Amino acid sequence: FESKLPTLGNSIFSQMSQLAAEQQAINLSQGFPDFSPDNYLLQRLAYHSQHGANQYAPMPGILPLRQQISKLVTRCYRRSVDPDHQITVTSGATEALFVAIQAIVRPGDEVIVFDPAYDSYAPAVKLAGGSTLHLSLLAPDFKVNWQQVAAAINPKTKLIIVNSPHNPSATVFNDDDWQALQALVCQHGLYCLSDEVYEHMVFDGAPRLSAHCYPALAERSFIVSSFGKTFHVTGWKLGYCVAPPVLSAEFRKIHQYVTFSSFTPAQHAIADTLAMQPEQVSGLATFYQQKRDQFVTGLTHSRLQLLPSAATYFQLADYGAISNLPDVEFCRWLTIEHKVAAIPLSVFYQKPTGARLIRFCFAKTPVTLNQAAEVLCQL
Amino acid sequence: FESKLPTLGNSIFSQMSQLAAEQQAINLSQGFPDFSPDNYLLQRLAYHSQHGANQYAPMPGILPLRQQISKLVTRCYRRSVDPDHQITVTSGATEALFVAIQAIVRPGDEVIVFDPAYDSYAPAVKLAGGSTLHLSLLAPDFKVNWQQVAAAINPKTKLIIVNSPHNPSATVFNDDDWQALQALVCQHGLYCLSDEVYEHMVFDGAPRLSAHCYPALAERSFIVSSFGKTFHVTGWKLGYCVAPPVLSAEFRKIHQYVTFSSFTPAQHAIADTLAMQPEQVSGLATFYQQKRDQFVTGLTHSRLQLLPSAATYFQLADYGAISNLPDVEFCRWLTIEHKVAAIPLSVFYQKPTGARLIRFCFAKTPVTLNQAAEVLCQL
Ligand SMILES: CSCCC(=O)C(=O)O
Ligand SMILES: CSCCC(=O)C(=O)O
Repeated sequence: FESKLPTLGNSIFSQMSQLAAEQQAINLSQGFPDFSPDNYLLQRLAYHSQHGANQYAPMPGILPLRQQISKLVTRCYRRSVDPDHQITVTSGATEALFVAIQAIVRPGDEVIVFDPAYDSYAPAVKLAGGSTLHLSLLAPDFKVNWQQVAAAINPKTKLIIVNSPHNPSATVFNDDDWQALQALVCQHGLYCLSDEVYEHMVFDGAPRLSAHCYPALAERSFIVSSFGKTFHVTGWKLGYCVAPPVLSAEFRKIHQYVTFSSFTPAQHAIADTLAMQPEQVSGLATFYQQKRDQFVTGLTHSRLQLLPSAATYFQLADYGAISNLPDVEFCRWLTIEHKVAAIPLSVFYQKPTGARLIRFCFAKTPVTLNQAAEVLCQL
Repeated sequence: FESKLPTLGNSIFSQMSQLAAEQQAINLSQGFPDFSPDNYLLQRLAYHSQHGANQYAPMPGILPLRQQISKLVTRCYRRSVDPDHQITVTSGATEALFVAIQAIVRPGDEVIVFDPAYDSYAPAVKLAGGSTLHLSLLAPDFKVNWQQVAAAINPKTKLIIVNSPHNPSATVFNDDDWQALQALVCQHGLYCLSDEVYEHMVFDGAPRLSAHCYPALAERSFIVSSFGKTFHVTGWKLGYCVAPPVLSAEFRKIHQYVTFSSFTPAQHAIADTLAMQPEQVSGLATFYQQKRDQFVTGLTHSRLQLLPSAATYFQLADYGAISNLPDVEFCRWLTIEHKVAAIPLSVFYQKPTGARLIRFCFAKTPVTLNQAAEVLCQL
């Protein structure tokens, strides 16, 4: 049997989480919280499932949730988006990314992807018959060279995938980046897939920018976000895509045949929480900034060299002073010998960079972060 | 913007449910129960979400659920399937169908589909770059002519999609059908996608057959089922796919990038229910047979001519004695003028048959079924 994705196996996130479990290691690899979501959210889930909301949701998502999403986008970015024609609820941001790519990419099309890149982009493009062109961003600042992007655009180019705040580098696009992206997309008639699942975790009072803030770009963009990240429930697999009406119509045609609709009681629970506890969203940056600060402080005397973490719940570290192992082996060694699991950065790149970088997830309790820091300081 | 699926709009199920809501009609169109699932299931959902099960499930589904699925398959069909390498939990049977098609169909491949067919098969094949060859099954018995199938097979043929128990006709394959299917699949080196989402609703003591019962066929099959149907929670969007290890490996590669994993607390709730209340599954046929009987009895004096309903929660009716309207218009008229919504059969066919058939869903409370029957008897 010939695979369509011959080079791909079990994702690094599954592999490392499994190794961490086997080794009873502190799992700072796969990105998910080790603490509970807010009780109100869980109570609303129980309430709605016990009060009749267990049958198919409407295909684009329940209206109260789409209305709350619309309000949230307006609150955060002063953009008005129509719940009926621009917002579609999906079974996780992963489904939204997959469907957006299916909606746009045709056989022969080329898609520009910036490495280090989330692992689902390239396989989704390949399944749609397209190919990816990978441009590497490098430590420590992971800046996009927009002139290099302009030079890479050719008649086959159809889509640019961006991800700010960026997993795994924890950097964000500034206004110049967004302006350059908008100019290229509009000038060449491209589309943009903007993966903004960490949008509410931007630190140190930096302005929160998004494709939503750039009208000409937004007109050609699928903007994807994730309730799993925002509400500490990665296992709820609930996300959404905002796109102009024409693109949303195509997105929905495909979503209709990929999952049709998403878990109904959770849609109600999230809608209630957005309506009644909006501070859960507005307070998220502070919440995670404190975790970052605790983790960074704990590593003050470590031989790991920390890179700036400006956003997301990830922290990169250079282990060059500790070991010469390639990063995949270093992560295995760290998990097996020291019982702390992390993600090697090389798996996010198509071309090797030779860097000695690993990614920690700090969406963890103070106790977990302290324990991990203690171990890591002994390396 | 040129659509990949230019002929498709909002699905008939969404359209009719929306019209029913607008008209405050009794909704016997889209297939879903109007009653609550078992309380135990809902309590387990609340319990698990309140006890820490809110982060990513493993990509193939939580192990306890895969183990329960394995036991269920063995109980029902005496087939042994390995939870580790043959079972993958999906975000609804719709995702399982989509992923299986993506796993098998390559550009240029042809897929045999029997009309009337569920609406997601053909778009999924098209998105994978393949094409569908539609063979029409006709009322009243909707028998497959296997000689016609044999004649349709050509070097491009890659996959046959079957659906027994069959939505919308409420018929089932007998042993001869399964044997003929197995012979063709094996002889021509094809694959089979067996959509068995109504597997536990087979009436009148008929033997329960499945692709699971035919070892040579099962070796080349993706077998899809749905917890939404079995546990009266269509909005939970939880299904699964059973396939041999090589096919499951490819299935999982794709599932990993389509949704990655499914709503975690519901996986635990279903696993608990399968373990503690297996009678919810084994009693389902009797439960729905009673509903069928009530609905059929209520229509004794109707001018609708009912076809046999041997399985599923659907009932076909010929309205030729009542109206000459085409079925789509008849359904709109019935919803608007008489406040009962049904699904026109023609939407399940690629080629018009000229039949005057509509589909009712009888997964409804006794009160709803009585009210609907009363109205329908006055037509
Ligand atoms: C779906 S598993 C990946 C989780 C994640 O986003 C990450 O760890 O980068
Ligand atoms: C996903 S909506 C379709 C529900 C259904 O299976 C049907 O009505 O046939």
